[in-house]
Amino acid sequence: MNLILITPRELDEAGKVRLTDQRAKHIRSVLKPEIGKELRIGLLNGPLGKGAVEEVSSDSVMLACAFEAEPPPRPSIDLLLAMPRPKVLKRLWAQFAALGVGRIILTNAEKVERFYFDTHVLDPDFYNARFIEGLQQARDTRLPDVTVVKNLKPFLERETFSAIGKKLIADPSGTRSLFQCLETGRVEAQRILLAIGPEGGWTPYELELFKAHGFDLFSMGPRILRTDTACIALISQLTLLSGSNEK
Amino acid sequence: MNLILITPRELDEAGKVRLTDQRAKHIRSVLKPEIGKELRIGLLNGPLGKGAVEEVSSDSVMLACAFEAEPPPRPSIDLLLAMPRPKVLKRLWAQFAALGVGRIILTNAEKVERFYFDTHVLDPDFYNARFIEGLQQARDTRLPDVTVVKNLKPFLERETFSAIGKKLIADPSGTRSLFQCLETGRVEAQRILLAIGPEGGWTPYELELFKAHGFDLFSMGPRILRTDTACIALISQLTLLSGSNEK
Repeated sequence: MNLILITPRELDEAGKVRLTDQRAKHIRSVLKPEIGKELRIGLLNGPLGKGAVEEVSSDSVMLACAFEAEPPPRPSIDLLLAMPRPKVLKRLWAQFAALGVGRIILTNAEKVERFYFDTHVLDPDFYNARFIEGLQQARDTRLPDVTVVKNLKPFLERETFSAIGKKLIADPSGTRSLFQCLETGRVEAQRILLAIGPEGGWTPYELELFKAHGFDLFSMGPRILRTDTACIALISQLTLLSGSNEK
Repeated sequence: MNLILITPRELDEAGKVRLTDQRAKHIRSVLKPEIGKELRIGLLNGPLGKGAVEEVSSDSVMLACAFEAEPPPRPSIDLLLAMPRPKVLKRLWAQFAALGVGRIILTNAEKVERFYFDTHVLDPDFYNARFIEGLQQARDTRLPDVTVVKNLKPFLERETFSAIGKKLIADPSGTRSLFQCLETGRVEAQRILLAIGPEGGWTPYELELFKAHGFDLFSMGPRILRTDTACIALISQLTLLSGSNEK
């Protein structure tokens, strides 16, 4: 926990918060701060800040909070992911928030099993808790948006992706690498949407559908990675190329 | 399993192999090949090839193997990693082999708990089995080399890293990004050694030690990632910059 995330409704009128849950436990047993010490805090979906320790007791910690004027920038990468196995997705939620993903679109695809969607892992309460874990790890405040798509074709026809500057799709059939696909090698100052397929890959029909909607095809290379590893690898590569880790 | 890995001693004089373990089960129940069908195979630490199905029975599969002349190139990235918690390392072994790491050096550091080294996860039988899993996922044949270092300073003084073209160390104290650190943005045709610290980070003393031994410091950016996520992220970024996913 490299940041203590606080929700707006936890703050009193004087900008103070009394923590009694895992955050208080972490502060007491790991950070062990003296009174007056300032801890890194963040307001959920808001700015970062400092929380001065006012009181530490056996069951609570009181912080006096001061926040920056602006929230951190929204991550510039969005993900369109063929719904993975629930146990894989369960592990991925926190990592998406930690790596920095603005929006996560989970979609059906021909090689996705229908029953994958019948899982508590898709409950907002479940994934928001995992997001908060990832945000507190990575020192960010913004919860990713989640969209669940049961039918890919009408979604692609309906959705304008108006804020997106570049749409990319990863598939072993691609003949260009990610580096070659982004002419300059860098993609600063534009939102990127990255589509990643299921374990069995996209079908030729699905690939054509994505191409018809302006997605550029690239290959990760000869190595075939597990979905979870591929997601982390590709988001990291795009983060590097977009320069968003240089801020 | 995107490749069936075979060890040299399993092959008979005619270049045939009779599989009876998980590989046979995978071939029978997932690939379900007809007689004569050629499967992707690889010789452990040797070349890739094709295995023609000669016989499928309830408890075995017989393949007639033909291999390419040359083994795939050795991955150009080596890793020097502060020993992570055993349960984290356990999950990472297969991913190192899948992502493509030539050599893995696990080292002690001030913020590494000594007891991390007392684990079956460091037994060669344990990690080689995980490596084979990762190689079969990613279609590679080369087992990474593993070195366990209990004392970092004498190791750095003794080790020449003669084959290494570029030595890099990741730490939040770095002022340059990985992209900025590699002048051209690309690092083709040289071996890279990447040092990644423990959850609590390298100490200033350790950072000086690495710098004195020619390591260039860079930062991943403001986000702090879990060790396992950071390893996958950094190896992927270097793979992209080295162009080794374009072959």
